[in-house]
Amino acid sequence: MSENAPDYTALEAFALDLAAAAAAVAVPLFRQRDLSEINKGNASRADVHFDPVTEADKGAERAIRALINQHYPDHGIIGEEYGSENADADFVWVLDPVDGTRAFIAGLPVWTTLIGLRYRGKAMLGVIAQPVLQEVYLGSPLGSRLVTPMGSTPLKVRPCEALDNAVIGTTDPHLYAGAEVEAYAALRTATKLVRYGCDAYAFAMVAAGTMDIALETGLKPWDIEAIIPVIENAGGVVSNWRGTAIGPEAGQVIAASSQALLEQALAHLTPAAN
Amino acid sequence: MSENAPDYTALEAFALDLAAAAAAVAVPLFRQRDLSEINKGNASRADVHFDPVTEADKGAERAIRALINQHYPDHGIIGEEYGSENADADFVWVLDPVDGTRAFIAGLPVWTTLIGLRYRGKAMLGVIAQPVLQEVYLGSPLGSRLVTPMGSTPLKVRPCEALDNAVIGTTDPHLYAGAEVEAYAALRTATKLVRYGCDAYAFAMVAAGTMDIALETGLKPWDIEAIIPVIENAGGVVSNWRGTAIGPEAGQVIAASSQALLEQALAHLTPAAN
Repeated sequence: MSENAPDYTALEAFALDLAAAAAAVAVPLFRQRDLSEINKGNASRADVHFDPVTEADKGAERAIRALINQHYPDHGIIGEEYGSENADADFVWVLDPVDGTRAFIAGLPVWTTLIGLRYRGKAMLGVIAQPVLQEVYLGSPLGSRLVTPMGSTPLKVRPCEALDNAVIGTTDPHLYAGAEVEAYAALRTATKLVRYGCDAYAFAMVAAGTMDIALETGLKPWDIEAIIPVIENAGGVVSNWRGTAIGPEAGQVIAASSQALLEQALAHLTPAAN
Repeated sequence: MSENAPDYTALEAFALDLAAAAAAVAVPLFRQRDLSEINKGNASRADVHFDPVTEADKGAERAIRALINQHYPDHGIIGEEYGSENADADFVWVLDPVDGTRAFIAGLPVWTTLIGLRYRGKAMLGVIAQPVLQEVYLGSPLGSRLVTPMGSTPLKVRPCEALDNAVIGTTDPHLYAGAEVEAYAALRTATKLVRYGCDAYAFAMVAAGTMDIALETGLKPWDIEAIIPVIENAGGVVSNWRGTAIGPEAGQVIAASSQALLEQALAHLTPAAN
């Protein structure tokens, strides 16, 4: 175990390689028909929690895991599809190969590949990749950037200090349950504009400064760990609905372009915090 | 005025030129900051009908109108931003240069440019273009195709005869009001999967066979006229919520991959039809 600081330049380059490997599997399967028969769990018809797993999801995670095992055999892995290995290592990759599987199934190019890297328990590096758009939103202690075939540009949240001027994103208002319903409704009516349907891509928009807030409930660690470094190194903040650090169970999550804006949103959300 | 049949080959090529001209205006403005101060009408802060108009919207319509006036000076034009001219002509172009302005403002590449062509009162040719993705969904009596820099591929709805297996799209559940609220809720719970946030792009997905139903309320003619030929020439159906032809006021609209599926959806929607 090295006592040197992590080499984030090398780790960033490797994370981009992982995103490219996932894209090589997932993109050819996007908009192909007859994927939807493959699903896991309780996918009963009218259930908004319907959670299909495509061949893209599994194949992309296999491709990522193979590269990690080859190049960094001492690193741990936590993935949505294939579970955990060596999860107590100094470096642990946290993977959601296709976040927004429902968008993927519907043919909508707003699904993403999420690749996070924990160092000694803290989310330090993350990638939010949308390979149809050829966009990779990358964050690490070296900064947050949008990486495309045209080059790399810095990501920076925009100034938005007032909730009533905020553009917010969440995937589906019907995912909120119990006390969350009222809390979300109060937040929604206090903001300027709401967009739905984006899963992790809405968080990328916060980092890019085109949205001001993104929020979700029921997230798993692999849904959010990659996002945290992208938001934070673009100048934004990420927390649970109490305004504190996201715990190992993830759950209710919010990202905002500033602490001031976060606190205004939390005034509506915290009463429904788990 | 010619009695020959319209030259749809030439008109298709011209419609693609119009889409390219609109893209040349709109794409450079996409994700630029400080657009949102420009808006029209009653854009009070918590209003879900908030309807901003960007420079992209106006500039793209000006670019399209200039080309029509230059190449087809006897054609009429109906546009969202600049009104009607010569609207009783045999050929009338119906334009929404940026459909999904709210997606545009939020940085989400699911806004579209809609270019429709009426011939003697009937929607005959249409383009749904998403220039960030470099996708043009084109429909005419010559067929429906997806046109990209890689070439042209046929568009075909997919077989889906049962509502409980349908993937549906609508922009925002909070746009439904009055009796529509209950009707939409009934439809939603009768389907497999719902995606939000797509405006006209969801209709393109129906033509492409990745979604089965798209529906909206409160549409204007320029929101739907371009869509009709794309859906119909891909094998789908478009109607109002009574199952009849969409009238000059547009309003409540649904597209489905088959008549059988349409009728199952209408069982839920028609009670709320205007």
